[in-house]
Order: sequence, then structure tokens, then C-alpha cells
Amino acid sequence: MAFREKGILFILSGPSGVGKGTVCRALRKRGTSLKYSISVTTREPRKGEIDGVHYFFKSREEFKGMVQNNKLLEWAEYVGNFYGTPIDYVRETLDSGQDVILEIEVQGALQVKKRFDEGIFIFLAPPSLQELKKRITGRGTETASLIENRLTMAKSEIELMQHYDYVVENDEVQAACDRIEAIVTGEHCKVSRLIEKYKRFSEVD
Amino acid sequence: MAFREKGILFILSGPSGVGKGTVCRALRKRGTSLKYSISVTTREPRKGEIDGVHYFFKSREEFKGMVQNNKLLEWAEYVGNFYGTPIDYVRETLDSGQDVILEIEVQGALQVKKRFDEGIFIFLAPPSLQELKKRITGRGTETASLIENRLTMAKSEIELMQHYDYVVENDEVQAACDRIEAIVTGEHCKVSRLIEKYKRFSEVD
Repeated sequence: MAFREKGILFILSGPSGVGKGTVCRALRKRGTSLKYSISVTTREPRKGEIDGVHYFFKSREEFKGMVQNNKLLEWAEYVGNFYGTPIDYVRETLDSGQDVILEIEVQGALQVKKRFDEGIFIFLAPPSLQELKKRITGRGTETASLIENRLTMAKSEIELMQHYDYVVENDEVQAACDRIEAIVTGEHCKVSRLIEKYKRFSEVD
Repeated sequence: MAFREKGILFILSGPSGVGKGTVCRALRKRGTSLKYSISVTTREPRKGEIDGVHYFFKSREEFKGMVQNNKLLEWAEYVGNFYGTPIDYVRETLDSGQDVILEIEVQGALQVKKRFDEGIFIFLAPPSLQELKKRITGRGTETASLIENRLTMAKSEIELMQHYDYVVENDEVQAACDRIEAIVTGEHCKVSRLIEKYKRFSEVD
């Protein structure tokens, strides 16, 4: 049987306001081979949202069952609804040889790290805390005390960077995408991932 | 003092005939920021060769002195002349923040590995042993028994791949260059290289 490389799970994470969503959308536009993980949620589908495409929609009972049966890589509650990453979907996609990218908050990433250590953890960092403050303030939706909370949280999240493999500075969206694509390419060249392929190729000759 | 990232030493190596020289020349043409290591040699300068640019030209006595004083990362004898990689030049370039790339035979790379484990070792691999045979035969300069010798050596060198960090398939020169450039970018994003930078940036705010 020919050697078939498995996909790699990339976890893109970082402080709130750093631009994870923007970077992910820009990556999608580039049409990379990365598959985007589909979350499970208990919230109601919005107009136009399709089950299995935008989300997997589940009842609270079903969601609890998934948590109890270790079917979620990570999960969290947000404004009264539950959100999580289904482990089966991720594993099946990786087994089919495709990479998966997961865009997620720092706390969620650390949950994933515990359960899926072979993932590649990328920390998206702001160029400076001043710049992060500007970005959060720029949204115009947060109060001064909320902004301060976020910055304090960002500082403590930066301290968790040591649990990650890579850090990508989001100074400019396209530059950040270039770095993420380079990381993906480089990870696929790791000897540890390819040694079996070359062992076989030496045998057959 | 601002954080200043040190350069990284990349060692590009692989079996004879795989195309290390071609890939290195193509990388040079791209004008990447990689500095090419300059070898020390005891052979006579050829017309147009400049000391300190193409090679560092040394007498056999001087060369032996460098070996004895651990001034060479690796060295070898080839057709009666000595060739080596000067450790001081490499260290100074890395300290100045520039990356260095070293194109070298597998045995030389393993010598470097022992003395400079923090280097990033890239194995340039042929798409198959059949293809490698074609490339060696295509040179038209080798006898049948020499070709067989080289293939046997290539097989044993592929077994040494486990001591490397990355393997880049040289299926097509530009594709191989793309992968090497991605590896360089990815290595510069490693958390282990940047954690000090972000620790400081959290302190000053």
C-alpha cells in the first residue's frame, strides 16, 4: 500500500481583538487546502444557515451527551448557548489526508492541547499591546472598563504562548496569512511525518 | 534593549546527484535573505576567485591549525585538497541576525549536527531512487559501477534522514525552493525563538 500522509490539525488562536476571524477569512479567500472545522452549537439556526455546513445544530440534550461521551475537542458556553468542536469530524477529515484549521479562543486551544497534543498550535499575536487596544477600541462597541478587561486578559493570554508551537504576528493580514501558509508547508516537510514514506521507497528499489 | 532575533543556520544536504547545487543556485537567484556560507580550502584559487568571497584560501598548515583549534564546523578531503566550514564566520553572521545556509554532503551534515545541534537540517530527497539514477546517469560522466556505488550510498544516506528536521522532495527545482523558503519562514515563527520578545513586550505595557 502506498504511503498516505495524514492531515494536520492547525489551531489558530490568540487574544480577543487580535484579528483571528479576519485572518481566517483572508486565508479562505486564498483557496488553500485547509478545511475549516465546523462547530456544534445549541443555538437556533439563523436564516440561510445550513446544518453540517455552517454549524452542526444540536439540542442541549444532544450537546450534553457529546460532552459526556468525549465527542468534543473543546467546548464553551457563550451568551446562554453552547459551542464545541466535534472530534469525529476533525479525525475523519485528518484521516482522509486533509488539513483542518480551527479558529478558537486561547482557553479553548488549551483544552484542545490536552486532548490532541499532535495538533500544531499557532498563536496570533498583536504587534504590540497598544495596537491591540487600538483595535478593540476601534470596534466602537466596548466600554472603557470592558476594554481594560480585555487588555488584562490579553496580557495573561500572551503568557500562555509557551504552550504553542508558533507565533504569528498579525501586523498586516496578508503577511500573517503568508506566515501561516509557510508554517503549513513546513510542517508537511517534517522528517517525523515523512520518514515512513522514505523507508518504504528505499525498500522497493 | 530591544529584542533582537539571532539568525538561524540551515543545513541543506542530501545524496550526491539529488540537485543540491541547482537548488542553492535557484534560491540565490530569488534573492532571499539567506547568506551562503563561505568554505575554507587548501586548493589554489582559480582565475577570478576572490579570497573571502568564493572561498577562504588557506595553506595546508593553516587548515590543520583550524582543525586542531576547533575552528571548523566540518571538513573533508576531496581530490587531494581540504575543504571546511569556518565556525567563526558562521557564528558572526548568525549573531548579526542573518540566516546562513550551508550546502553540504550528508557526512558533513552529520559532523555539523554534532557541533551545532541548534541548526535546522534539511534533507533534499529525490522523488524516487529510479529518478536519482536517471539524474546521475544523465550527467554522462560516470561509469556503470560508479553509478551503482552512488545509488548504494544514496540508499544508506536516506537511512540517515532521521537525524534531520525536514525533508524536501526535489521533484522540481522551484517547488523545492518554495518549500525551503516556507521552512525558513516557519522556523522564524517558532515560539521558542520569540518567547523572549513577547515576554518583554508584556512587561513594558
